[in-house]
Amino acid sequence: MSDNNGKTIILKNRPSILSYASIVGKKEGEGPLGNEFDIKVVDSLLGEDSFEKAEMKLQQIATDTALNKVKLKYSDIDCIFAGDLLNQCIGSSFGLRQTNMPFVGMYGACSTMALTLAIASIFIESGAATKTISVTSSHFCSAERQYRFPLEYGSQRTPTAQWTVTGSGAVILTNTPQKAYIDKITIGTVQDLGVTDANNMGAAMAPAAADTIKRFLQDTNTNPNDYDKIFTGDLGLVGSSLLYEILENDNIDIKNQHKDCGVMMYDIDKQDAHAGASGCGCSASILASYILKRVESGQYKNILFCATGALLSPTSTQQGESIPSVAHLVNIRHTN
Amino acid sequence: MSDNNGKTIILKNRPSILSYASIVGKKEGEGPLGNEFDIKVVDSLLGEDSFEKAEMKLQQIATDTALNKVKLKYSDIDCIFAGDLLNQCIGSSFGLRQTNMPFVGMYGACSTMALTLAIASIFIESGAATKTISVTSSHFCSAERQYRFPLEYGSQRTPTAQWTVTGSGAVILTNTPQKAYIDKITIGTVQDLGVTDANNMGAAMAPAAADTIKRFLQDTNTNPNDYDKIFTGDLGLVGSSLLYEILENDNIDIKNQHKDCGVMMYDIDKQDAHAGASGCGCSASILASYILKRVESGQYKNILFCATGALLSPTSTQQGESIPSVAHLVNIRHTN
Repeated sequence: MSDNNGKTIILKNRPSILSYASIVGKKEGEGPLGNEFDIKVVDSLLGEDSFEKAEMKLQQIATDTALNKVKLKYSDIDCIFAGDLLNQCIGSSFGLRQTNMPFVGMYGACSTMALTLAIASIFIESGAATKTISVTSSHFCSAERQYRFPLEYGSQRTPTAQWTVTGSGAVILTNTPQKAYIDKITIGTVQDLGVTDANNMGAAMAPAAADTIKRFLQDTNTNPNDYDKIFTGDLGLVGSSLLYEILENDNIDIKNQHKDCGVMMYDIDKQDAHAGASGCGCSASILASYILKRVESGQYKNILFCATGALLSPTSTQQGESIPSVAHLVNIRHTN
Repeated sequence: MSDNNGKTIILKNRPSILSYASIVGKKEGEGPLGNEFDIKVVDSLLGEDSFEKAEMKLQQIATDTALNKVKLKYSDIDCIFAGDLLNQCIGSSFGLRQTNMPFVGMYGACSTMALTLAIASIFIESGAATKTISVTSSHFCSAERQYRFPLEYGSQRTPTAQWTVTGSGAVILTNTPQKAYIDKITIGTVQDLGVTDANNMGAAMAPAAADTIKRFLQDTNTNPNDYDKIFTGDLGLVGSSLLYEILENDNIDIKNQHKDCGVMMYDIDKQDAHAGASGCGCSASILASYILKRVESGQYKNILFCATGALLSPTSTQQGESIPSVAHLVNIRHTN
């Protein structure tokens, strides 16, 4: 069913998108995509007593909403694929523990939505599952205090810094034909060009996005013009520019098709978002709203969704390590 | 190719075990399984300047060794599935960044070896890959300071505490027939019976192991006597007793077949290991040595490998949360 040797995986059984849902916080709801999301919450704690518990709730609400849209229950699902940015991925494991469903925990930093979707597709493709949920989340407040400083410190942000999205997106796949389906998958390789500035993750992630997009185009013998859009996860302004530069070295120009979720999420100037948005919940909530709506409607017939992740930890940064990154890609098509 | 609705997945294409390798630290090398492991290191830093970097090196050496045994290179592999206990899974992502291979990061705490093997099996089964590596690690010193206290504090350990294994195990799967193969997979569900003592993870994990083993036996309509051995990941002494109790409520008695990697690793009395061993590297290094040797030789014809993970984080514990757990199972058979 596929090409092999680390190459792009071509799916034959059309794992299809049955439902999806998104939830975001106040700042995201006030951004240019505000009307696209299913649910916007104003209380960043969502009624919980910690930001981590609030993030768990984001995943619950996203998956509940995606199920409700198609009148399914958790017991109709074979397997959940989930991840987040919190240490030991507690946003997912605690957030979904009440579902009592087979649970696959994944970690790809901000690339995790593409990763959970890719692995779920393989489950559907192989027949190991008939319905799956892929879900990821991030929360500005839980991420800031884990990766950088507690908000109370009032730390200054650098111009290259990105703003972690409070949000979650969930996608239900099925083995029965729907309007949108996953056609191909490219699993990312870990790239590390030696960037050490943890406030410039766009620059750290750009080489990973470039490598994955280039491999996909080579493996499929296609070029950027063959796609309606090429979405990247959350490179932001700095990372997007660098992505263009790297790809130009290989005579690949994606500027006409490219949109970056990190740039799309906020009105960067008015909302003081510096280099843009980031977080597992950024590309997840935009995929599970803006993007999939347009593939379902047929406005986009053929798109690439390439989410990028910076695989650093505070410990690795403190030990002087550079920032390895990864980008996973799914090619999503409208049924013709 | 499978049963569905969250049930045990039955593989038809026999994802097969091509190679495996294990590396452990000094204490593990001095234990009852000392002669089983490929490599024993005396220096817990492995020549590196931090315990985290030492753990990254454990994964590198385990995968290098597994490849060398069958004279393969990384470029012969389609995809690597890896995980560890460190925040943001840096043992895997940093440890394997030099491989330049498609990389799937996974998180299941100490259940991760069974999870990476399960997902790799589905890749082989579906044709998405022809050769994969599954690898996990843990390191006593990096785990202690992340989950509990820096070693320099000289903290007292409770009788129910388990000792995190310094070690790593790697398994290479292939789509061509070999002596041992993966026959079935049960993806675990998250279980949480409200245990809050982070020094008694065996008790927290026992319900997850019980649920997964019970589901497997029900789905396959088999009983414990049908298996040569039923290995659990690292329940330790306390968790193993509790596992028997829970299963007895369902009239399932696995005592004759059961062995727990957490009990097997150390001479618990002589080596002051309290309730036994734990860590992603515990079940991984025992699987990739003692267990797979015996399946390959035909001494075991049919075994269950059910690795268990406690999905807590220091943050969730500090916030008063209980400890959710998960156990993933692979049924490994000798070709008759």
